[in-house]
Amino acid sequence: MTDQIVQSTRIVLASRPHGAPVEENFRLETAQLPPVGRGQVLLRIIYLSLDPYMRGRMSTAESYAEPMEIDDVMVGGTVAQVLASRYPGVDAGDYVLSYSGWQTHAVEDGARVRKLDARRAPLSTALGVLGMPGFTAYAGLLAIGRPVAGETVVVAAASGPVGSVVGQIAKLQGARAIGIAGGPDKCDYVRGRLGFDEAVDHRSPEFAEQLAYVVPDGIDVYFENVGGPVTDTVMPLLNTYARVPVCGLVSQYNLPGRPDGPDRLPAFMNYVLTKSLSVRGFIQSEFVDDWYPGFLMDMSDWVQSKRVRYREDIVDGVENAPAAFMGLLEGRNFGKLVVRVAEE
Amino acid sequence: MTDQIVQSTRIVLASRPHGAPVEENFRLETAQLPPVGRGQVLLRIIYLSLDPYMRGRMSTAESYAEPMEIDDVMVGGTVAQVLASRYPGVDAGDYVLSYSGWQTHAVEDGARVRKLDARRAPLSTALGVLGMPGFTAYAGLLAIGRPVAGETVVVAAASGPVGSVVGQIAKLQGARAIGIAGGPDKCDYVRGRLGFDEAVDHRSPEFAEQLAYVVPDGIDVYFENVGGPVTDTVMPLLNTYARVPVCGLVSQYNLPGRPDGPDRLPAFMNYVLTKSLSVRGFIQSEFVDDWYPGFLMDMSDWVQSKRVRYREDIVDGVENAPAAFMGLLEGRNFGKLVVRVAEE
Repeated sequence: MTDQIVQSTRIVLASRPHGAPVEENFRLETAQLPPVGRGQVLLRIIYLSLDPYMRGRMSTAESYAEPMEIDDVMVGGTVAQVLASRYPGVDAGDYVLSYSGWQTHAVEDGARVRKLDARRAPLSTALGVLGMPGFTAYAGLLAIGRPVAGETVVVAAASGPVGSVVGQIAKLQGARAIGIAGGPDKCDYVRGRLGFDEAVDHRSPEFAEQLAYVVPDGIDVYFENVGGPVTDTVMPLLNTYARVPVCGLVSQYNLPGRPDGPDRLPAFMNYVLTKSLSVRGFIQSEFVDDWYPGFLMDMSDWVQSKRVRYREDIVDGVENAPAAFMGLLEGRNFGKLVVRVAEE
Repeated sequence: MTDQIVQSTRIVLASRPHGAPVEENFRLETAQLPPVGRGQVLLRIIYLSLDPYMRGRMSTAESYAEPMEIDDVMVGGTVAQVLASRYPGVDAGDYVLSYSGWQTHAVEDGARVRKLDARRAPLSTALGVLGMPGFTAYAGLLAIGRPVAGETVVVAAASGPVGSVVGQIAKLQGARAIGIAGGPDKCDYVRGRLGFDEAVDHRSPEFAEQLAYVVPDGIDVYFENVGGPVTDTVMPLLNTYARVPVCGLVSQYNLPGRPDGPDRLPAFMNYVLTKSLSVRGFIQSEFVDDWYPGFLMDMSDWVQSKRVRYREDIVDGVENAPAAFMGLLEGRNFGKLVVRVAEE
């Protein structure tokens, strides 16, 4: 197997988007993989995770990661099966977590994959509730948000892979959890299935009034993953000493340059000042050393005991990843968006 | 003395400003003080502190304090001498710190004044380096900014009562201190007299290039007390995990409503996210319990040993307080602005 020529069908960055990505920014191609070198593994990709942060990697603008180059394979977390291995401890047939991107096959350094136990949890959860999005929610809420019993936690994109976990962990901490989501179906799911105390539809014309109504004691933690008008609505409801973990800003990733006014920064900073707010940006990687072992233990337990529930939105075929990704940035997915690249 | 009728010459809030305060927002009047009740003291005001936060109290907009009512005496910290006392432990002749506002005499509850030792330090320093502005700098820098040796601290309004202390304490912590000030005189003072490593003139057309030049290793702490274009210039220079204590926003206090665009908030939040910034608003009062005793000890020592220097900008006569205050909001003062209401 290791000497065999393997082809990978893949999506590459064809051009950088201006504003929202369009089809022309992506290109489907087939490439021949290099032979498997010493210390490497050959992977067959099964699941590909699609996440909002990828929008940032498509641009050259300031970010925490280097931008992709034109013609690079689109980046992304993946669950894969090992077809061949020249890395000790990883064997053909093993399931692994890798960062192989939008493609069907890949050759990776064995040191950069992590073995998964397919019996412990469904494989795809390694990209969601038991993976990066789940850990983002866990670390951001517990390390920065620090809700205590009786406090009120608000999170937007509440039916998504991060927001859904934020609210459920908030409940497990004894806090009130309020979700913001787009449309009545997602709100019903957030309240009914996920057990948030309340869910508010940000598309409703009475969104501001409804949000104010369900937080009679104000908001102590606002887990920020959208930005934009939702943030403007939340700010006046924040309590003194409220914490705002800033995890993402999906509503603004497609904004070109400096948007038109009015200038919202003075009002924002005035809230920061007069309410003694803590606004803290983060990416999950900074918390791995301190929080990851606890996360794996807690979350595995919570998922098994159904105290934390999750939902996946599965799309078949790597060729459909661009359309699914464009929908993600518009909130059209419902649950963790995963591309099934191949059957398990 | 306690039965004698005493008149107070005072400045009251005549109307609320729209944008920058103008003369018509203030009114000079003379009022008869009530008799000194049990537990009260009669004060002759000597020094009045003028500070940017007072602008907020003149408006009804959201703030951490109740707004003043029309016809209220303008608020402010004061150093006074006791003329008569019906409060045990405070005697006629004592010097006290009070919050009596823009007037020549006041009757206060004895419990709300604090005795000052006129031999320990000049009386006016109780309004500056040894008072609220000094403590604001101390607590904001040490509790939120937490600079460590070798880090770079940037502060604007660096010749002012808060900024000057921020930079000098940063130096005492082993950090590099960079001051931003308006005009070459203030910059010379910040570098030469206060001993900052560098000072940059925000009025210079090359301000952005000059600031970037003097922070070759980026900025680890930005002590925010101005907002506006200075903040925009600082943001791209902040390092990952930089801390931004938000102490004041003097450049925007006079802005009416929502200013014209472009909208600066998306870019700001993008820095918060991608650099994992901590932005934390505060007022000094929240730190009093934990930090005030240490402040008094440290700062008295530092002032006596001249490791912390200060400068006062003294204006004579309560009737001149409005003009001095309007100048303060435009950065026309040079040093801690104090009104000498009467001779010591």
